[in-house]
Formats: sequence, C-alpha cells, structure tokens
Amino acid sequence: MFANLPEPPYYAVIFSSQHSAEHDGYEAMAERMMALASASAGFLGAESARDAEGFGITVCYWRSLEEIAAWKRDAEHRVAQRMGREKWYAGFRLRVARVERGEAWEKA
Amino acid sequence: MFANLPEPPYYAVIFSSQHSAEHDGYEAMAERMMALASASAGFLGAESARDAEGFGITVCYWRSLEEIAAWKRDAEHRVAQRMGREKWYAGFRLRVARVERGEAWEKA
Repeated sequence: MFANLPEPPYYAVIFSSQHSAEHDGYEAMAERMMALASASAGFLGAESARDAEGFGITVCYWRSLEEIAAWKRDAEHRVAQRMGREKWYAGFRLRVARVERGEAWEKA
Repeated sequence: MFANLPEPPYYAVIFSSQHSAEHDGYEAMAERMMALASASAGFLGAESARDAEGFGITVCYWRSLEEIAAWKRDAEHRVAQRMGREKWYAGFRLRVARVERGEAWEKA
C-alpha cells in the first residue's frame, strides 16, 4: 500500500483524475501500466487511492526526470494515455515534483 | 475536486495514510483541518481521495516551505496530528516536494 522509498531527493509524478462514465477496459489497462512502469528504469514505487465518486490520486516516484520522460514516451504507455483521454477520464491533472523530505510513521 | 493552482514552482505536501478501525471524530477533524489550512497564509489548494479500504492520499499545495512549516506548527493542527497518531491512523507517509511542472486536461 505504502511505497518503500529511498532517502530523498527523488521525483514524484502526482496524477489526479476524475473518471468518466466509461469504465470498460480501465482496470486491465491500469494494472498493465503499473506493471510496465514498475519494470522501467528509475521507477521507485507508487501509491494510489480512488474514491467512490471516481476521483483518484496516483503518485509514482522516480529516480530522475530523464527516467520520467522515458516512461512518458513508452509506446504502450502512449496508447494508454490516448485511450485515457478518449474514454476513461473526464479530466486530469499531472504535476511533476522533486521530493526534498520524507517521513514515515506506523502504529507501534 | 481539482485544485486550481498557479504556474509552478510551488510546493506539495503529499500525505498518504491508512485508517485504523477507529473512525470516531475523524470526519469532523478532517473538515476542520482543511478549513484551517485553507485560511492559512500560502495555502494554494488541495486534492484528496480515499478508497473503500481506508487508504487515502491528500496532496496540499503551498507557496513556500516556510508557510508549510508554519502550518505544521499551528496549535490546533498539532492537536489533530497527535490524535491522528493515537487514534485514526494505522500508518502514514508524508513527503514534501517542489512542483516544477503542471499539466491540466479536461474533456472537451
């Protein structure tokens, strides 16, 4: 559930999205994209939550901006990006950030 | 649902958390904290999603690290932080990041 990350600095891609009414094929694509991203150079981990109204936030963590750019250009990922716009998403925001500080807490 | 943000750079506090079994008082506290944060100097906006299993991500956006630090020290917020550890959360991660780039898309 929580990503196991190294000490900062590293990079975060914060992707928030609102689902459209069309869900067909979304789950399979999301799983495939997470598997592909996880196998990509520089991928450090990801966390994701979506509420009952279809609003979700996925944060993927990466070692470098160059590796984020390479993932963005991945051929299969580009097909998924296009299908997201055509079908699954009513809107999204994407923000790329450099993580400077991290803190973890677990109940004893 | 989506935060309306200015052009980067600005800062993100990425807070991911797993709820414990104790929910009493959580919703009221969460609403109060969002109202308090929204009224704090430097607060730019927030987005939040929590799934059916109690895993959630809230991203708050701020103008500066100094204003994030001031919010962290807010007296009422500190009480909420302590209650979160004692009661509402099984675990959390908190990451502070500098947003370098933002992208927005809405279905036409």
